[in-house]
Amino acid sequence: MAILITGVAGFIGANLARVFVSQGKTVFGVDNFSLGSIFNLDAVIDDAHFSFIEVDLLDIPSFRAAFVEFNKHEKITEVWHLAANSDISAGLENPMMDLNNTFLTTFNTLSMMKEFKVSVLAFASSSAIYGDLNGQRLTEDIGPLLPISNYGAMKLASEAAISAAAESFLSKIFLFRFPNVIGTPATHGVLLDFVRKLKDSPSSLEVLGNGTQQKSYLHVDDLISAMLFIRAQDSVKVCLYNIGPCDDGVTVSFIAEETIKAASPGAQITYGEGVKGWVGDVPRFIYSVSKLKKLGWVPKLNSAEAVQKAISQIMAQEKGGKP
Amino acid sequence: MAILITGVAGFIGANLARVFVSQGKTVFGVDNFSLGSIFNLDAVIDDAHFSFIEVDLLDIPSFRAAFVEFNKHEKITEVWHLAANSDISAGLENPMMDLNNTFLTTFNTLSMMKEFKVSVLAFASSSAIYGDLNGQRLTEDIGPLLPISNYGAMKLASEAAISAAAESFLSKIFLFRFPNVIGTPATHGVLLDFVRKLKDSPSSLEVLGNGTQQKSYLHVDDLISAMLFIRAQDSVKVCLYNIGPCDDGVTVSFIAEETIKAASPGAQITYGEGVKGWVGDVPRFIYSVSKLKKLGWVPKLNSAEAVQKAISQIMAQEKGGKP
Repeated sequence: MAILITGVAGFIGANLARVFVSQGKTVFGVDNFSLGSIFNLDAVIDDAHFSFIEVDLLDIPSFRAAFVEFNKHEKITEVWHLAANSDISAGLENPMMDLNNTFLTTFNTLSMMKEFKVSVLAFASSSAIYGDLNGQRLTEDIGPLLPISNYGAMKLASEAAISAAAESFLSKIFLFRFPNVIGTPATHGVLLDFVRKLKDSPSSLEVLGNGTQQKSYLHVDDLISAMLFIRAQDSVKVCLYNIGPCDDGVTVSFIAEETIKAASPGAQITYGEGVKGWVGDVPRFIYSVSKLKKLGWVPKLNSAEAVQKAISQIMAQEKGGKP
Repeated sequence: MAILITGVAGFIGANLARVFVSQGKTVFGVDNFSLGSIFNLDAVIDDAHFSFIEVDLLDIPSFRAAFVEFNKHEKITEVWHLAANSDISAGLENPMMDLNNTFLTTFNTLSMMKEFKVSVLAFASSSAIYGDLNGQRLTEDIGPLLPISNYGAMKLASEAAISAAAESFLSKIFLFRFPNVIGTPATHGVLLDFVRKLKDSPSSLEVLGNGTQQKSYLHVDDLISAMLFIRAQDSVKVCLYNIGPCDDGVTVSFIAEETIKAASPGAQITYGEGVKGWVGDVPRFIYSVSKLKKLGWVPKLNSAEAVQKAISQIMAQEKGGKP
């Protein structure tokens, strides 16, 4: 009984693989290294419980060959589908990026699961599926769902395709709607941007937007803890959960100030205009995690603590030290 | 200022083209005749206000060439995107059908609109995006949206992609969530099935499921009236409406009995088991049209009347008479 992780060499995939392997589970991983990196797999690559094949999920024959190869060792009984274009702003320039890497990867994963009779799927969805609901508290049953980024749109499209598959051949699905997740190995995102900007120019930090955008942030350790908790507890066929901290988040100014405090004390912040950093950015949202709290899970770190911890981890990563 | 209708040779496209042309509007139409038929365009094909090019929307170079050709005559300023796989049960066997014909047609339509700077899009969405919400009243803001058919999934995926495009290059979008729409030219659906079954075997009618499935039905004339009403009235950027009759619908037994009454009095009905006719069928839903009523529109026919009128029209169609 093995678990296949797609996008295993990405930020969340690498952390998830490490935790599963540490629990003694057999983990197979695929990645095309478009955003992920082999270095992210340092902790597991030599472990007997872990096997990796480089595959682009858009290439069905290779994807199929990987399934065949993995199944020779141990039967895949569960897929954690994390592969996606995680760079939201890049997808705005080129909708093909999210079509291919966020949605068609899901579609192909479902095709392979049908072909190889794997019936349990856990999917990394996103708070971006909610679009901009004008500051309403985002519970799992709110609507209408009108995403404002191609990333959010293709995550919602993926949820929809998985949901339809649950009606026909899947026996159990987990739709985890991620918040902003931070930690290492960081591949993109505001914290990495700020750390890198300050490394390049230690005396000033330019911020897109006016800094008042407020979002909640979850540390990747807490994210994985939440997913495994839900995986173990929830008994319904379709398990849909917002995952996030219990607070309403921190502002971009807070992140800028904390990064400066840690990385380059005294640097000046220059703010842009408007509440949106870029087209498709949701300026403010309040994420409801009541359903998850009710199930019995709470995070170890709140948004502010997660940001502080992640800044320090990212600084270590960028210095080439051990994160 | 011309209107492009995709899927113009289909059931709803043909009716919409006829109404627009009768209003003196310039209408361009494309269709690949996968489900539509040139005969459906009888009423408009010779009209000076109407032009047609056979195009498969999956074939981008042909789609682009059609845009170029149409624009030579008059600039396309608005697209009504109706092209889709409308055969829900066929899409359950083969998910590629809805991926290609329901979703990628939308994705490509958006690409062309961006390229040719067309900023108004009306889209034929569906009540199928709601999935099975256990008989809850389906308002536009209900959730979660967990479709149970690939058709519903790819309609939701289309809404999502259009919504994201509204954030970047579209100025106005209309998402019309259709109920079961009936009338002629009928190409699929329960009424056509029943009429044809009774034509083949006049003494008995076999019904999938136990006949208690209850759905609301709208006549195509009312559907088009509603869409044009919303198009003319609503002033917000993203116009999302359920369209349907004001009643809670009729059962499959009612439809079976009415078809027998009209087509083959005395025929015996044999029912199957269970409330679902086929996988992906939503057994019972109550569609809220409060938002549309509030805007000031009500249909001429209720579900029962729409069914009765459509049965008579479909019988005429199937006899080769004028519907």
